[in-house]
Amino acid sequence: MTTVQNLGSYIEQTVSSYRFPDQPANLYDPLRYFMTLGGKRIRPVLTLMAGNLFDIPKEESLPAALCIEFFHNFSLIHDDIMDAAPVRRGKPTIHTKWNHDIAILSGDVLFTEAYEQLTAYADERLAPLLSTFNTTAKEVCEGQQMDMDFETAVHVTEEAYIEMIRLKTSVLLGCALEFGAILGRQSETTRHLLRDFGIQLGIAFQIQDDLLDLYADPEKFGKQVGGDILSNKKTLLLLTAQRLANANNDPRVSELLTMPADEQKIETAKQLFEELGAVNQVKQVMNDYYQQAITALDELDAPAEKKQPLHQLSQFLMNRDL
Amino acid sequence: MTTVQNLGSYIEQTVSSYRFPDQPANLYDPLRYFMTLGGKRIRPVLTLMAGNLFDIPKEESLPAALCIEFFHNFSLIHDDIMDAAPVRRGKPTIHTKWNHDIAILSGDVLFTEAYEQLTAYADERLAPLLSTFNTTAKEVCEGQQMDMDFETAVHVTEEAYIEMIRLKTSVLLGCALEFGAILGRQSETTRHLLRDFGIQLGIAFQIQDDLLDLYADPEKFGKQVGGDILSNKKTLLLLTAQRLANANNDPRVSELLTMPADEQKIETAKQLFEELGAVNQVKQVMNDYYQQAITALDELDAPAEKKQPLHQLSQFLMNRDL
Repeated sequence: MTTVQNLGSYIEQTVSSYRFPDQPANLYDPLRYFMTLGGKRIRPVLTLMAGNLFDIPKEESLPAALCIEFFHNFSLIHDDIMDAAPVRRGKPTIHTKWNHDIAILSGDVLFTEAYEQLTAYADERLAPLLSTFNTTAKEVCEGQQMDMDFETAVHVTEEAYIEMIRLKTSVLLGCALEFGAILGRQSETTRHLLRDFGIQLGIAFQIQDDLLDLYADPEKFGKQVGGDILSNKKTLLLLTAQRLANANNDPRVSELLTMPADEQKIETAKQLFEELGAVNQVKQVMNDYYQQAITALDELDAPAEKKQPLHQLSQFLMNRDL
Repeated sequence: MTTVQNLGSYIEQTVSSYRFPDQPANLYDPLRYFMTLGGKRIRPVLTLMAGNLFDIPKEESLPAALCIEFFHNFSLIHDDIMDAAPVRRGKPTIHTKWNHDIAILSGDVLFTEAYEQLTAYADERLAPLLSTFNTTAKEVCEGQQMDMDFETAVHVTEEAYIEMIRLKTSVLLGCALEFGAILGRQSETTRHLLRDFGIQLGIAFQIQDDLLDLYADPEKFGKQVGGDILSNKKTLLLLTAQRLANANNDPRVSELLTMPADEQKIETAKQLFEELGAVNQVKQVMNDYYQQAITALDELDAPAEKKQPLHQLSQFLMNRDL
């Protein structure tokens, strides 16, 4: 994982030494704080790796990578408000540490910083970069809205759920990778394959998240195991279990949802979802997306050794303990 | 005012027939609603007029004009949340009619729509358009933060106040006009003069707002006269009156601020600010900015008859009953 780690450090170093203006302090202090909370910096690393496929030096890909990372953090800041999340990466969220208004506005200004990065490319690549980024940013907003809508929706299909995670999280991975192809002045086909690789990988990763929430080793999992089922969150796992149970008039999933939010509920869910075959079906869906991602990467016209870091990163992402 | 009205109708028609996506409805319905609340559409009209100086047809300037108008509305949506404003143009604000989360997110997506408009210019003008717009968008956020900071600040100087209104409202007028110069592939000098014209005009307009709040004819003024002083808002008028009173150890402005928020307070303020000479000083400052705006417009290298609509619009804006 040397390449991933090296590129991650390079991004981390750049982000943490990035100079936001001093004033107004209430606008920029929250960004200085938030941007140094860490994170895996996977998205900007994808841009650097994709650029490297076409011999774009990492220094040249850097602004595009920062654009992605700033946008990602902007969306986290605003999502944290909407989710009323008190904590992010073990630290108070901006709206908790400052207030809602400051979180809205510092998010907005970080969004402009993302776009600002693209002005580093004042040539024929700017138009496709801007266009791709705009489409992606809109889709991320749409995905977040779908996610909020699902909270109160009576019925959500598995297809709609996957469309939601595609928009909310996966298209940004696709954009991060497509940026590398645009920087390398590649064909529409190459751009599409790289974007597709990112989107399929992102969906697989997100589905894995659903599984990990219930079946991860509590010792290794960063957050509380079973959080999703305690809040009856409509994950792909629950939606699949509901479909399988309904097909047999099996009332157990409906009963599960009425159980009090405690350890017993988590244990019941774990056994029930296995028994219904939901876990296997969801794993199958996850693996299908992962395979599609790898197929897109394989089809890509670039030297095998240059694709190696992207293969490694994919394995690293999908190799969380399950 | 035929040109202004014609161009205004053209913008209004385009904005009200603009097709936002149907879904997710909770994301785009608020935008369909908000964008048809009306407004004077001054900013996009400025872009069309500035483009016309250099023979750019209005159809060609339109996307840049829409960029400005969408951004302006995005900032209103988020400002309304921060100001906890229940009403905008006589109708419920988005966060009132829907909720805070939807107002944040539909604002965000409108921001991307603003940028999206710029992709219409896929040539060498895109880089300066994007760069100018980014700088402006950041400044508007900074101005909004300063405005919020001033609410709780003990002491605000007149200079700081003017810097706040310059950032919060005037730079966007400057950007709207500079867009026309960029579209017309004009020199840095011309760009600067047009931007400057907009900024000075915007500051003069905003100072006039402060005066109108207290001295407007209630019959003709759209909102409650005296709203600013009822909430002890630090306007240029109040800050000037405070300075003049303090210089003579005159306690009356301090006393004014402790008065209950009623008609008596408004009458006291009106008389006191006149008596202290604050009204005259503020009018002088306003006129100075207006003159600087007109000087910039005069210096601009463009045919006099083409500048005429901009002169007319300036007079129209500054000719509110005072």
